[in-house]
Amino acid sequence: MSPEFELIARHFTRRAGDLRDGIALGIGDDCALLRSTEGCELAISTDTLVSGVHFFPDVDPARLGRKALAVNLSDLAAMGSAPRWFTLALTLPAIDHAWLAAFSKGLFELADLANIRIVGGDTTRGPLAMTLTVIGEAPIGEALRRDAARAGDEIWVTGSLGDAALGLAILQGRVAVAEPERQAAIDRLELPTPRVELGIALRGLVNAVIDVSDGLCADLGHLCRRSRLGANIRFADVPHPAALKTMTDASMSQQLILAGGDDYELCFTARPDAHANIRNLSKALALPLSCIGVMREGEGVTVLDAMGGVIALPATGFDHFATKPRD
Amino acid sequence: MSPEFELIARHFTRRAGDLRDGIALGIGDDCALLRSTEGCELAISTDTLVSGVHFFPDVDPARLGRKALAVNLSDLAAMGSAPRWFTLALTLPAIDHAWLAAFSKGLFELADLANIRIVGGDTTRGPLAMTLTVIGEAPIGEALRRDAARAGDEIWVTGSLGDAALGLAILQGRVAVAEPERQAAIDRLELPTPRVELGIALRGLVNAVIDVSDGLCADLGHLCRRSRLGANIRFADVPHPAALKTMTDASMSQQLILAGGDDYELCFTARPDAHANIRNLSKALALPLSCIGVMREGEGVTVLDAMGGVIALPATGFDHFATKPRD
Repeated sequence: MSPEFELIARHFTRRAGDLRDGIALGIGDDCALLRSTEGCELAISTDTLVSGVHFFPDVDPARLGRKALAVNLSDLAAMGSAPRWFTLALTLPAIDHAWLAAFSKGLFELADLANIRIVGGDTTRGPLAMTLTVIGEAPIGEALRRDAARAGDEIWVTGSLGDAALGLAILQGRVAVAEPERQAAIDRLELPTPRVELGIALRGLVNAVIDVSDGLCADLGHLCRRSRLGANIRFADVPHPAALKTMTDASMSQQLILAGGDDYELCFTARPDAHANIRNLSKALALPLSCIGVMREGEGVTVLDAMGGVIALPATGFDHFATKPRD
Repeated sequence: MSPEFELIARHFTRRAGDLRDGIALGIGDDCALLRSTEGCELAISTDTLVSGVHFFPDVDPARLGRKALAVNLSDLAAMGSAPRWFTLALTLPAIDHAWLAAFSKGLFELADLANIRIVGGDTTRGPLAMTLTVIGEAPIGEALRRDAARAGDEIWVTGSLGDAALGLAILQGRVAVAEPERQAAIDRLELPTPRVELGIALRGLVNAVIDVSDGLCADLGHLCRRSRLGANIRFADVPHPAALKTMTDASMSQQLILAGGDDYELCFTARPDAHANIRNLSKALALPLSCIGVMREGEGVTVLDAMGGVIALPATGFDHFATKPRD
């Protein structure tokens, strides 16, 4: 690593991990050495954020650092796995120490909250992008998956949906929303909250889980395919921000709620007899959990209006080859 | 994931891993679920390759796929760890199925050889780049490290050094070399061989190991700093390609041998009484192992000529912010 890169690396150097964190050897060698917890499985996931595709080039770097980890932690949450370690590969067009200091501050604030330790990294020159790989743990056989839904399961979501997509639409100038809803939506886009604590609490309580990163219909569609089932959603029960309730363009509002990406909420399915326990968990964690539909035989996601009529689905999923945050 | 991205993902879909590979759940969920071997530590490393910085945009994609994994496997080799699993984050400016088919073919040919399984990935739109994270295993306490050299240790390197830097200089038009040395040097740049088998065989036999990715002096310098020692190198003993022996520009030749990056050989230190065993290992693996110097008290890397005079060190290390493969 060149002297300049060592300077970069310094922004990401924390105290050397120790065995309490499962770290036998931290950053500074060809590899870190990790010891997993006996009786646990590792959950691993990787996600890349590219400037101009996943975030605006001028986004607050502290928020970006936090989000880069948050979207990866959301994958661990969806597996009911406790965060342990992550690696960071950061590609930078130039060295900007103020930017790096803010980025790493945001990153490590969330890392400390989530009790996850950095154990590796690479810094390279190139167009701004970052790839994180996260590793978590869950007791063997207890991790949550997409493929375990049963027909008759109730479908639940955390928090509310469409917030981040609304934030993106605001920043793109496609929608005007008054304060404080405007900033709240932008915050949801830039500061998603991975549902880590909830994911762990759902172990043994629910059947299947996925995180909502590409939009409710797309992600629930993945869960349906993996579980070889279909889903009926009651649109009126899907939680969404107040600003979307009063939006005059109803089809745009539906699009944001059903197909908006980047919310990083969890969608899960559970037997109806778990209903009361899930309600209690919601209270205990002070996290809204909404029952929005039911798993059924068949395939695909069907969204129903209050009269039981079928709402035509918007184009599902977030296609990075078709969509950019700013044109 | 959009339909187009599912198409991309198909290039990287292999048979679902099973428990024989330590894979409880393969690609297709929010995370893969892995089971590590009892009594082993995990070794983890991540490396990014960026188009125009680490490789030429028009490089053969099969070679690029292979190299992207090779440079990561080299980190596992340097830890004496057996390859187990990897994730691939691939950023593409556009979807080119012929390119993707070739890239994945090269990648998986080496993955199969090295017995490492893909367990996660992300495909995103953006400037061409890829980040791999590899995980290996070694029995607890037996992994090799940079910080364990002792004064008096002999210093060894595998294969030969300067080959890849010569290949780069040829492709940049800075050097002219006749065939077959020309293609051989380019092959070393584009098809490095990670010394995985050797790395594992060095467990228990040697003290400290590092892989030579940034150039001998830079990487041995890292090993020295981590071990709080210095090193004396006998330049005449440093193995290098025949084409460099006859190069008229001696200072350029020295630069390529001592500071050329991308060779992905291993440099290791061992007690002199291990010398015969190391020679035997060299024969058993049909891999040249050269004894090039000795670890000493002090700091820094000193390179000596045949008369015992000090050779002025070239600028050490490969600075991606200063150097591009093609201007």
